Amino acid sequence: MLWFTEQHTPNVRFSIKIDKQLFSEQSEFQRIDVFESEEFGRVLALDGYLMLTEKDEFIYHEMITHVPMCVHPSAKRVLVIGGGDGGTVRELTKYQNIEKIDLVEIDQRVVEVSKMFLPKTAAALEDPRVTCYYEDGLKFIRHVEDEYDLILVDSTDPFGPGEGLFTKEFYGNCFKALHEDGIMVNQHESPFYKEDAYAMQRAHKRICHSFPISRVYQVHIPTYPSGHWLFGFASKKYHPVKDVNWQAWKELRIRCHYYNCPLHAGSFALPNYVEELLRDVED
Amino acid sequence: MLWFTEQHTPNVRFSIKIDKQLFSEQSEFQRIDVFESEEFGRVLALDGYLMLTEKDEFIYHEMITHVPMCVHPSAKRVLVIGGGDGGTVRELTKYQNIEKIDLVEIDQRVVEVSKMFLPKTAAALEDPRVTCYYEDGLKFIRHVEDEYDLILVDSTDPFGPGEGLFTKEFYGNCFKALHEDGIMVNQHESPFYKEDAYAMQRAHKRICHSFPISRVYQVHIPTYPSGHWLFGFASKKYHPVKDVNWQAWKELRIRCHYYNCPLHAGSFALPNYVEELLRDVED
Repeated sequence: MLWFTEQHTPNVRFSIKIDKQLFSEQSEFQRIDVFESEEFGRVLALDGYLMLTEKDEFIYHEMITHVPMCVHPSAKRVLVIGGGDGGTVRELTKYQNIEKIDLVEIDQRVVEVSKMFLPKTAAALEDPRVTCYYEDGLKFIRHVEDEYDLILVDSTDPFGPGEGLFTKEFYGNCFKALHEDGIMVNQHESPFYKEDAYAMQRAHKRICHSFPISRVYQVHIPTYPSGHWLFGFASKKYHPVKDVNWQAWKELRIRCHYYNCPLHAGSFALPNYVEELLRDVED
Repeated sequence: MLWFTEQHTPNVRFSIKIDKQLFSEQSEFQRIDVFESEEFGRVLALDGYLMLTEKDEFIYHEMITHVPMCVHPSAKRVLVIGGGDGGTVRELTKYQNIEKIDLVEIDQRVVEVSKMFLPKTAAALEDPRVTCYYEDGLKFIRHVEDEYDLILVDSTDPFGPGEGLFTKEFYGNCFKALHEDGIMVNQHESPFYKEDAYAMQRAHKRICHSFPISRVYQVHIPTYPSGHWLFGFASKKYHPVKDVNWQAWKELRIRCHYYNCPLHAGSFALPNYVEELLRDVED
């Protein structure tokens, strides 16, 4: 029997029974694997870390997208950094008012492999509003000013190719690249295992340094370490819960499997131990 | 190297590195194991299923206890069914207004082993308000009427010794055993993997049959399958969010690592796919 095993920590393993390996390649940046599994459908792994499965990717992609889109009443120009699998772009294309989606993915092969093996996730990359830039997000953002309503940082973990997307310089440049009512949402690691919690604290500290409003919200992602995952919500103007016109979002009639407005509000209510980890690095 | 591995489904394994096995015994009802681990501290397993770890048991025990205790303004008599490890009792003993805690655990050896190997979890079993009955909860509750303010069903999964605690007869008898403003909270399985979701639906259908108010709330429990776990909140009178005096609870100054009032409210906001699974069995 073939098992894909990820070490969530040196002491914890999560294993998925694999029917077969569909693809494997060492790209310029990382190792890319695609597996077929009975439990989760297709599985994408980068450098041996599980990035998404067809069974639960809707949770990650809905929650990174619809939370800020519900808060921002008229987002038209959106930048996605990372996210070469196309899942975040797919959710964005559900909004008719969005005019322009720029995707900056360092590794063109991730986009190509996703189009080939993960069509349900990658399909919307063909939407005419989408432009793909195969560049380092850290470099791309340096020369952008007052350009976007929304930046979604759909990154890997803070080592390897994704490392630059967790730096103070990067967050500062995202602030500069946003309009005066802009929002940045980022993949924010997890509070439970020690190393993930440290990465979460470090990111929060740096984002607080750049943005006046910086909150964190939580989701259940069963295939990520501990299943308890966080997103960061950093904003120039809008509070993620108090400044929301819920009715306006409902009238868009966007179909979701995970996201809804009460869940959006509830996801910003964090356990005490998480609040304490965050407070420890504020100011 | 020694690893404790639980099959979350036939296709998914979760493994914890074990320093050593501290205890193993086949009791009259089940196999009981205690392990020492670096990542999670001590681990209790029944029939090979992970019941609790010292690292994350606070989440389960706080959330099964403080949610109903915050809703019920003056609970004095509480029945815990299952829960031989003592964690739920520990949380209950934080309330001075509780006068009587009855614990009905089918397997006396679970209580004895927990007292021996899990002192942080089991300590409050010595509280003078606690009486332990070593009986089948299903039989115990049959002859009880109008006796409790709160029943916490801290059961194992719906097979083996815990099976009777998921039956229509059991929920009906819990209703009868409660005062006119009583609340029952139960371990309600998980929505993510197919078999767990089926158990969740079946329990919800049966509870709806007995109680006028039946809601479900969610928590992050990293060591349980998918990490996405549910509790059922079944009530004769009080709604779990609308009928709560949050200020009164805060004034009790009970220290928690996970639970807080906004999180309590937020935990009843469920993902669409979970709401749909529940609605499918309501009528």
